[in-house]
Amino acid sequence: MVGNGDSKLRKKVVIYDSTLRDGAQAEGISFTVNDKLKIVQRLDEFGIDYIEAGNPGSNPKDLEFFEKVGGLRLKTARLAAFGSTCRAGMAAEQDGNLQALLKANTSVVTVFGKSWDFHVTDIIRTTLEENLRMIRDTLCFLKGQGKEVIFDAEHFFDGYRANPDYAMQCLKAAAGAGADCLVLCDTNGGTFPSDVYRIVSEVVRQFSIPIGIHCHNDSGMAVANSLIAVESGAVQVQGTVNGYGERCGNANLCTIIPNLQLKWNASCVPENQIKNLSALSRYVSELANLAHNERDPYVGHCAFAHKGGMHIDAIHKNPLSFEHIRPELVGNERRILMSEVSGRSTILKRIQEVAPWVDKNSYETQYLMNELKRLEHEGYQFEGAETSFELMVRRALGKNDRFFHVKDFRVLCEEHWQDDYSASAIIKLQVDGVEEVSAAEGDGPVNALDKALRKALTVFYPELDRMRLTDYKVRVLDTGKATAAKVRVHIESTDGERVWGTVGVSTNIIEASWAALVDSIEYFLYLHHRGPALKTKCKSDSMG
Amino acid sequence: MVGNGDSKLRKKVVIYDSTLRDGAQAEGISFTVNDKLKIVQRLDEFGIDYIEAGNPGSNPKDLEFFEKVGGLRLKTARLAAFGSTCRAGMAAEQDGNLQALLKANTSVVTVFGKSWDFHVTDIIRTTLEENLRMIRDTLCFLKGQGKEVIFDAEHFFDGYRANPDYAMQCLKAAAGAGADCLVLCDTNGGTFPSDVYRIVSEVVRQFSIPIGIHCHNDSGMAVANSLIAVESGAVQVQGTVNGYGERCGNANLCTIIPNLQLKWNASCVPENQIKNLSALSRYVSELANLAHNERDPYVGHCAFAHKGGMHIDAIHKNPLSFEHIRPELVGNERRILMSEVSGRSTILKRIQEVAPWVDKNSYETQYLMNELKRLEHEGYQFEGAETSFELMVRRALGKNDRFFHVKDFRVLCEEHWQDDYSASAIIKLQVDGVEEVSAAEGDGPVNALDKALRKALTVFYPELDRMRLTDYKVRVLDTGKATAAKVRVHIESTDGERVWGTVGVSTNIIEASWAALVDSIEYFLYLHHRGPALKTKCKSDSMG
Repeated sequence: MVGNGDSKLRKKVVIYDSTLRDGAQAEGISFTVNDKLKIVQRLDEFGIDYIEAGNPGSNPKDLEFFEKVGGLRLKTARLAAFGSTCRAGMAAEQDGNLQALLKANTSVVTVFGKSWDFHVTDIIRTTLEENLRMIRDTLCFLKGQGKEVIFDAEHFFDGYRANPDYAMQCLKAAAGAGADCLVLCDTNGGTFPSDVYRIVSEVVRQFSIPIGIHCHNDSGMAVANSLIAVESGAVQVQGTVNGYGERCGNANLCTIIPNLQLKWNASCVPENQIKNLSALSRYVSELANLAHNERDPYVGHCAFAHKGGMHIDAIHKNPLSFEHIRPELVGNERRILMSEVSGRSTILKRIQEVAPWVDKNSYETQYLMNELKRLEHEGYQFEGAETSFELMVRRALGKNDRFFHVKDFRVLCEEHWQDDYSASAIIKLQVDGVEEVSAAEGDGPVNALDKALRKALTVFYPELDRMRLTDYKVRVLDTGKATAAKVRVHIESTDGERVWGTVGVSTNIIEASWAALVDSIEYFLYLHHRGPALKTKCKSDSMG
Repeated sequence: MVGNGDSKLRKKVVIYDSTLRDGAQAEGISFTVNDKLKIVQRLDEFGIDYIEAGNPGSNPKDLEFFEKVGGLRLKTARLAAFGSTCRAGMAAEQDGNLQALLKANTSVVTVFGKSWDFHVTDIIRTTLEENLRMIRDTLCFLKGQGKEVIFDAEHFFDGYRANPDYAMQCLKAAAGAGADCLVLCDTNGGTFPSDVYRIVSEVVRQFSIPIGIHCHNDSGMAVANSLIAVESGAVQVQGTVNGYGERCGNANLCTIIPNLQLKWNASCVPENQIKNLSALSRYVSELANLAHNERDPYVGHCAFAHKGGMHIDAIHKNPLSFEHIRPELVGNERRILMSEVSGRSTILKRIQEVAPWVDKNSYETQYLMNELKRLEHEGYQFEGAETSFELMVRRALGKNDRFFHVKDFRVLCEEHWQDDYSASAIIKLQVDGVEEVSAAEGDGPVNALDKALRKALTVFYPELDRMRLTDYKVRVLDTGKATAAKVRVHIESTDGERVWGTVGVSTNIIEASWAALVDSIEYFLYLHHRGPALKTKCKSDSMG
């Protein structure tokens, strides 16, 4: 059974990624050919052994992909095309899906076949004997084409529980026909750890070719089941980046790889690559266009975020006290959260960065604690938008230099007849007593406002062209209030060196975006003007 | 070890919910006193045995909660207040935190104490002997006050691995002082299944009082570890709804309860309650103000969503083929997704609901398939917004009755000086040749537009007051394009009987909201006007 730090293992575990095939069956995911090419390159750089990249028989877009992927030079990864065994009553060489599989022109092909008697009789509606023939014929045909062939035994665990003898016959048919690896699939994700242990152990005992494991997460145990399979003798683990996949997803390789490599000292990817795990996870979620799962083990934004006062205190004494690994091992980072439960000391530390003379009993500390509570109650969240918090502190302490004053702005959105939309903004602002009016059109009201503001400010601060917004997120806070709901806008900005986040909250999305935008630009100007030049160049006007 | 359908178990497993204490330490969660009262009632109705509802020593807001919660009549749940053992060098009866714990006035108190020698020496910086004294004294004091006392052995698994003898001494100190239950905590979430199995089995062998398990998910195995602990003899499982908790979260009770009760036939909550699990999960995420995790086992929106063409085909033959349980057992539902990979048959079925004469080879089918692909490519997603898809089909087939024509609209957002924002909309529309102009102010531009549109339409369709928007969501699609990013707006509406979802996509949030809004209202009018009355009341104007 799976124990921590059990150094007896230290073995190579082959990683087989199916993000681009099984992962693409997740709700909400639809990769373009270009996305898929980018992900293949990234997985290859990371050191993944096999990349299952599509099902050319069922998805014509995948054939286009396989044509293009031939042009990539992969360092370590082998590409696999995925398909099913030939159909009932048909010779393998005559099956159009197998022809499509060969057209993908990969050195590896993975074919799945039925191993649960119920699926043979009730779903593909053929005889148990014919299914064995289909497996044999398909494998023989593909081996005859010189392919490395991986056999995915679909529903193997359900099949074994229903009819162990038949499930084993399916594996034997594949092995006898030359399969290079037998993969046991928990297709419905309902299998529990001890059945995985018992069944994988039995298969490993009976076969001399490599055994793989392919788990789904419908019982929330895909990661544990995968590890237990490895402990039972499986040498290949199939899964997807971020656990993407149909229904509740596949086994999450971003959890499995560090579990195996950091805790067990097994070898999955090159040692110098594991620190790129968090970046890989984010990259794939970006291309999948899904929000990154913040609470994911190892790679999530929250994975090493500490909030409770006692935890934070202990972490300062020794991070080992509340962290199972050092976050930098997987390219993640420790975060100390700011909130009403994070304790006065965390907030005090932030305040002291601006005003070192303040202590925990100062009037300012109490004032800012109350202000923080009030803003959090309104829907503000400074986690990830620490810049807005810092500006709030600076303003309250009279330490903030205002670089500009907006007198007013106006945003107009119009629709004339069907489908002729426009958005424009007019803004009037003042810098050192000099007024500037500007206007801009945009791709929407916020974009128009953003452009008009920059246009006006660039007159005074040409360096603003070095700053750009890299992320814009909208969160509806009380969705039940429909269009009258409060929204929180998060903006992330960069000047090429630093990245900072700001936040705004309002029932009016334009007002919320505006607040985050102004904070972001103010912080940029503060970064580039602090020091002696500040006083002469900009009017100081504290809000404390 | 944990196997499926293993009916030998059938035992009572006590469920201890810590959503309101450990769950509240999750990033992004901040429950109000009122939220907490609501959640207590809901957990009680669901049949949870213990509800750990706060830490009165560390959070003064929790004391207010405990005062108010006394007024609730709970049916089955026992409330627990949570705190630590007394401090080093201090008698239990003099410790302010323990006084606060008693002030909560609950029949159950849960105290945590150190059981990892490293934490004793390096974090609370006292001697191993003094820590044992603290545990003993605290337990004796609380038992003397007539409380049911649960002892949480913090970091027990790390402690046992480091110094098994000392970890056991800590448990013995608590048991000797009268603890009613010993809970083994994997506080850092780094423990693997076999260590859980080995260590829990050993503890169960040595103690005659009930043993509980408390897991965190830092290695992605909190659910599996909890189940394996039960199999090793633990009789109480601690966790949180949706797995909320610090860092990667706690063991997810929404997965554990059905795993135990439906797969093992254990008894956790009353049999007639388990069907309310999905609703409970959504309710808590609403109050926590976090997006519901769609991919969560059992309760997630995707948990029984089928997308791959072959899967959908099999599900139609027999749902058992790709579902580990029947979704209605946990109050969830099966969903057949519409997308380019879901296969022509799913889309054809949708089209045939509008136009039964169309078949898979019809020109219309090909046209709509291409249209679907084009819109998906643009960022549309009809999963959850099937109404917009239906309207698209109706329009394309010339089966759509237009109930109104918008001539133009204008939305104006203004800011005059600091903090004086306004949003207003003017709209001109036509119904049966009659023009109507209206204007409204709103909490933001979209709200203003929504109000102006309803105002104008209610003149012609007074029944519109029965329809309301229940959900409004904004998703920024290409966050990297910042304020020029495309957004997708989802709106959910109801007329009190039915619920329907619509979608709009644009770089202009007002245009995207507008599209979803118009679809939603059109669908309502279609629902309420279909049949013979239609033709006389509304102008028919197909777009096909």
